[in-house]
Amino acid sequence: MILKFTEGRDRIVCEYCETIHYTNPKLVVGALSFWEDKVLLCKRAIEPRKGFWNVPAGYLEDFEKAEEGAIRETWEEAGTDIDIIQPYVIYNLPQANQVYIHFLAKLKDGIVRNGEESIESGLFTEEEIPWKEMAFTSSVFALRRFFEERKSGIFTIHLGTYPDKT
Amino acid sequence: MILKFTEGRDRIVCEYCETIHYTNPKLVVGALSFWEDKVLLCKRAIEPRKGFWNVPAGYLEDFEKAEEGAIRETWEEAGTDIDIIQPYVIYNLPQANQVYIHFLAKLKDGIVRNGEESIESGLFTEEEIPWKEMAFTSSVFALRRFFEERKSGIFTIHLGTYPDKT
Repeated sequence: MILKFTEGRDRIVCEYCETIHYTNPKLVVGALSFWEDKVLLCKRAIEPRKGFWNVPAGYLEDFEKAEEGAIRETWEEAGTDIDIIQPYVIYNLPQANQVYIHFLAKLKDGIVRNGEESIESGLFTEEEIPWKEMAFTSSVFALRRFFEERKSGIFTIHLGTYPDKT
Repeated sequence: MILKFTEGRDRIVCEYCETIHYTNPKLVVGALSFWEDKVLLCKRAIEPRKGFWNVPAGYLEDFEKAEEGAIRETWEEAGTDIDIIQPYVIYNLPQANQVYIHFLAKLKDGIVRNGEESIESGLFTEEEIPWKEMAFTSSVFALRRFFEERKSGIFTIHLGTYPDKT
């Protein structure tokens, strides 16, 4: 494989058969889930950012719907079921070649467990959130928007990019 | 490469070094752009669905922000600049292993041209849209939501899946 300027940009091309091997950003899906006045966070049991808190999220799997991925990740990380309300945040991480879709969701029963990918799961009010121990800015961005909008009860859709705004 | 049951699902694994080659759905980004009471559509000059009309869209490129991809695709297909208003539609195409993000956008000057990937570009009122000659259901879904919401002037965010609803 070689890098070759093709179709207006550098692409990975086989130097023998000239086949272009297209690569694209990865889609990460997650769910900002709430229960009464609290939100669900999980302490990561795996790298990167092991030991830091996060909104459950992970790579969308082949042939999966975006919201199914968010439901699956929430189960893997917090052992709990959610109802998706709406897409809530699109967050670009161009340096990591990732785009996040965070859904807004409601916990079905308010019970959280420690999923296999988490050291600990918990429900946090705005004041209790460990802001300085958050794993990723995508979660911070989503949480800030949620607590701003919760006052009005009207949730919109938000577009963000690291490092522009958290 | 072989398919091997790993991490709870079939993954593509090298049979010699056991490296897992992760594959994921592709992210397609587009823009539903309007000018006064008309929306921008382009007649595709390339397969698939050559000769059918579509909202400008295409694969997000490496290290690109989602909205940058939508702006680029609109330029490539219609030779026109847009201002992004908000993310508007998340649309799953699990059978094609794709997730679309369509943005709502406004044309900067109302002038459209034929980009290199289009046979023809045009601005259409709701009544003028060639509904039976549309290339992809993701565009139909976005257009239907747009014309429903335009009456109130309040645009939200929509989640859809083919073939559930258009």
